[in-house]
Amino acid sequence: MTEKIAVLGAGSWGSILANLLDENGNDVRLWSNSAAQVAELNDHHTNQHYVPDFHYSESLTAYTDLAAALDGVAAILFVVPTKAIRSVAQQVAAVLEQTHQKPIIIHASKGLELDTHKRLSQVLAEEIPADLRQAIVVLSGPSHAEEVAKRDITLITAASESEQAAKFVQQLFMNDYFRIYTNNDVIGVELGAALKNIIALGAGALHGLGYGDDAKAALMTRGLAEISRLGVALGAQPLTFIGLSGVGDLIVTATSVHSRNWRAGNELGAGQDLKTVIDTMGMVIEGIPSTKAAYELAQQQNIEMPITEAIYDVLYNGADIKQVIPQLMRREGKPELQ
Amino acid sequence: MTEKIAVLGAGSWGSILANLLDENGNDVRLWSNSAAQVAELNDHHTNQHYVPDFHYSESLTAYTDLAAALDGVAAILFVVPTKAIRSVAQQVAAVLEQTHQKPIIIHASKGLELDTHKRLSQVLAEEIPADLRQAIVVLSGPSHAEEVAKRDITLITAASESEQAAKFVQQLFMNDYFRIYTNNDVIGVELGAALKNIIALGAGALHGLGYGDDAKAALMTRGLAEISRLGVALGAQPLTFIGLSGVGDLIVTATSVHSRNWRAGNELGAGQDLKTVIDTMGMVIEGIPSTKAAYELAQQQNIEMPITEAIYDVLYNGADIKQVIPQLMRREGKPELQ
Repeated sequence: MTEKIAVLGAGSWGSILANLLDENGNDVRLWSNSAAQVAELNDHHTNQHYVPDFHYSESLTAYTDLAAALDGVAAILFVVPTKAIRSVAQQVAAVLEQTHQKPIIIHASKGLELDTHKRLSQVLAEEIPADLRQAIVVLSGPSHAEEVAKRDITLITAASESEQAAKFVQQLFMNDYFRIYTNNDVIGVELGAALKNIIALGAGALHGLGYGDDAKAALMTRGLAEISRLGVALGAQPLTFIGLSGVGDLIVTATSVHSRNWRAGNELGAGQDLKTVIDTMGMVIEGIPSTKAAYELAQQQNIEMPITEAIYDVLYNGADIKQVIPQLMRREGKPELQ
Repeated sequence: MTEKIAVLGAGSWGSILANLLDENGNDVRLWSNSAAQVAELNDHHTNQHYVPDFHYSESLTAYTDLAAALDGVAAILFVVPTKAIRSVAQQVAAVLEQTHQKPIIIHASKGLELDTHKRLSQVLAEEIPADLRQAIVVLSGPSHAEEVAKRDITLITAASESEQAAKFVQQLFMNDYFRIYTNNDVIGVELGAALKNIIALGAGALHGLGYGDDAKAALMTRGLAEISRLGVALGAQPLTFIGLSGVGDLIVTATSVHSRNWRAGNELGAGQDLKTVIDTMGMVIEGIPSTKAAYELAQQQNIEMPITEAIYDVLYNGADIKQVIPQLMRREGKPELQ
């Protein structure tokens, strides 16, 4: 299958997914608002800040002009940071109003919108009216851009209310090392993706504080339970949280040195202050705003989320991580399932 | 609370749990059928083959005489290998018939009986009739003896049909670094404990074959799905598999260098032959017989378990791991939840 596809956002994941779609034989346009990055991609086929030493396909073309990137595409893949997704969607809608091409909308971003706490497919649906597009599909699962770049085998989920759209996306991305499973629980897939970053921060913090593998596995398990509780209250199917976009993504995020959220937690646990951690990461740490969103949603829904609350206290109330985490791990013994 | 407790089996986990119960103020008798090991524990307070360089409590006493170890105890904790549990239970029953002390029976072993495929609490219930004992409680969760020995925080599950018995065991073990959650799903807790070793073997094999974190997380996720399918068919509650004894234990077993099952899989993946792996491990690799039990149960119950089948083919049919695992990871894309 050869399709014309626009990929919006040229960070690690966006640029590697664009490269994969190119490799699968599609005509791919990678959009970024950084002229320097676009020039580097087009002239040198590299993206050193995000994926050092990787050589991109020479047929992959980068654009700063959104209308040019979108021209005639059958699908648009959003891989922009959470806080930018609404404004980019508005710009996309303005182009599509002129062209009437009705593409499928895909996103592979992970987070919840600040303040509104909306899922990213909700934001996309609001900003790109249904008459300008086909269905929305969410791509999510245990996937490091660095490993996909090396053609290591990766299995992820394509979730959509439209089975046909999910299958189209499955065909688009599927190859020998990148395997797609379809799923119809968009709510569960998006919430798992956003909320697991909170648990990854916590697992990193445990490591930074000197805890071992038992404590890490316990925190991940109890964390999965609390994000599932919130997810189900918000309309997700509980089994989605034990799928690729739930526990799978949690495992890879919370046990791998590639994860920014884990690294951020680890540095906080080791005694670094929050501002320094954010400043030195140089990339978005989605778990920080996701913690705020989850904390506020838990308050609204009256859901007990002790791990999220502890991390929220550290990130937003200046609580001492050296006191909060041991308190969390020493809560009273009780029934496992409530 | 001070209780007289017998711990049967002085491997890594049994000896460390005995030490913990001693530290919690109980009168603990550790039984082993190895006179040399008992002498080493009593004379030097060490157990070098199992937990190198650890100094056991000097008030912990080891026995080879089972009747002496059981004399007057309120609880008996079995931590013997799966294949020995029936015969040890028979010996215990013979003692209890004389003494009528009706202790609580606890076990912290992980596996299924070969050929019968029975869970270990079923074996214990068969061999120790109800009039000789109180309820049976299963202890399970993400726990490395090495980390508990260092007083790293560990959270585990105490499962029993009797809430009272589970709470008694919770009180017995609970301290500042060892935290117990109660659960009433004995079937799910025991099956999770036994079957997760199969997935740990597979995760180790992936590593040995050179796969990355994405592939490992995917295998763990799909593995959790297939052991949950089998568990539910056998009467377990699905949510138990996302608890401490399910995904928690899976995470710690399949991502930690301490795990024998992971190490065995890793060596197989790296090209070592099965006999050498077994011979050089020097400790029981419970995942090997568990794979056979799970494979046979899946056939009986008509449950699809592709990961278990692949590992079974390697362990029992001489299939080439270098062919079987890539085939497994490249199965056709399909819906995630069936």
